[in-house]
Amino acid sequence: MHSFDAAIALTATKVDHFRGATTPAYANMVGPFGGTTGATLLQAALLHPARLGQPIALTVNFASALNTGEFEIEARAVRTNRSTQHWVIELVQAGEVAATATAVFAQRRETWSAPEAVAPVNLPPPEALPRADHRGRPAWVQRYDMRFVEGGMPDAFDGQEQPHSRSCLWVRDEPPRPLDFASLAAICDSFFPRIFMRRRKVAPIGTVSLTTYVHADAAMLAEQGEQPVLGVARALNFRNGYFDQSAKIWGSGGQLLASTHQIVYFRE
Amino acid sequence: MHSFDAAIALTATKVDHFRGATTPAYANMVGPFGGTTGATLLQAALLHPARLGQPIALTVNFASALNTGEFEIEARAVRTNRSTQHWVIELVQAGEVAATATAVFAQRRETWSAPEAVAPVNLPPPEALPRADHRGRPAWVQRYDMRFVEGGMPDAFDGQEQPHSRSCLWVRDEPPRPLDFASLAAICDSFFPRIFMRRRKVAPIGTVSLTTYVHADAAMLAEQGEQPVLGVARALNFRNGYFDQSAKIWGSGGQLLASTHQIVYFRE
Repeated sequence: MHSFDAAIALTATKVDHFRGATTPAYANMVGPFGGTTGATLLQAALLHPARLGQPIALTVNFASALNTGEFEIEARAVRTNRSTQHWVIELVQAGEVAATATAVFAQRRETWSAPEAVAPVNLPPPEALPRADHRGRPAWVQRYDMRFVEGGMPDAFDGQEQPHSRSCLWVRDEPPRPLDFASLAAICDSFFPRIFMRRRKVAPIGTVSLTTYVHADAAMLAEQGEQPVLGVARALNFRNGYFDQSAKIWGSGGQLLASTHQIVYFRE
Repeated sequence: MHSFDAAIALTATKVDHFRGATTPAYANMVGPFGGTTGATLLQAALLHPARLGQPIALTVNFASALNTGEFEIEARAVRTNRSTQHWVIELVQAGEVAATATAVFAQRRETWSAPEAVAPVNLPPPEALPRADHRGRPAWVQRYDMRFVEGGMPDAFDGQEQPHSRSCLWVRDEPPRPLDFASLAAICDSFFPRIFMRRRKVAPIGTVSLTTYVHADAAMLAEQGEQPVLGVARALNFRNGYFDQSAKIWGSGGQLLASTHQIVYFRE
């Protein structure tokens, strides 16, 4: 079993309820990697017998750092329409809500379609770039193969403020794993904190809320398979304890797989 | 009383519960304007006696069109930390969930701050532009003074596909009303559907999920007062029944007040 599947594994306990546990393979500085937490909340809806269609929107709110160990998830389909379904999901640990999520699932029909944003072009392919050094990083970083075109983790945290926080990288699960909705959701949270790039200074940070829109359907994800996706991330604003991040995840054919946004707490 | 305040007015009924009603002043094609619905869900947390700090993140999921008339809102503070508070909010009409929301509130501290995105420059001021024609539009459109720099509602829906869906406009409540968190949340949903711009073709649409990050605090909103804000919106992708929208709301001094994202259902 791939370590990602182990990380998001859930056991149904009663109607609408699942049990899971953190895994050391995806440990972060404090608690588990938020990407796996978000993916696990989505997974509860994906596994739910009442689930309709495929995810198109996911918002995860990180209410506190998870503790190492077990947690319970309640996933309720609060409204099921003909082609959409709305979920409210809560993760509880030791009687306290540690994360909440809402998700929208949909049955897509074929319609007129057109991209508007376009993927960056003329980039070096992943195999032409070195894998980013993950020595001394938290365990979860080692679960990804990241190859930076631009905006990798700074070589030195020298406090030299940079003009922007843009990153562009090829990323895939390590070892390779076929992309699916859960792993795409986790990859959406795999960008290093924009403030580290911008300030070249490490600070305590924590994602507070993360929203992902899934533009891809299952067939597009299957086509992507184990190939690296292209992630492009930037911040819009850093202000009084919070900054945001906007990112796009592109497939290897230049198709938009997901767009994702988060707001992040930081301490000076 | 300003019509916006009437639209978002709530009466506390019991712990965590509020009652409100739709108002004809903000009617949309089907049901009320989503911006007032989202603002009303936020208002429940703003009015709640347990509320801590100011909103920094709001996600609203529109599970169905609201019917004309009363609704009930349940707003639960599921986790209160030292400086953040997490809310889960549900709007129920006739026993069915019609909308859900999550919100994060925070007590901000003064820290290092820096913008990264910058507001468009050299734009004509609002008073140099005509107010957009709102004849034949739903009632809610008349509750806003919109002055388009670029990307207004097409003069003709001639089906000529455009290369992009970008809009840039000055917008304020009509009549003027001092900006606050609720009205800012509503303005974040006041952009016309991107697909109307892109295709110059009207289609049934409905916002499915809307996320807003509030970069401004109450002092910044007070400084903005009744002046028009600058809204800039675009889409990234239109695909098989859903498109997204990303927008920024700038204050009249070029400061980022909010960034907002939504995913929208469309039918051909």
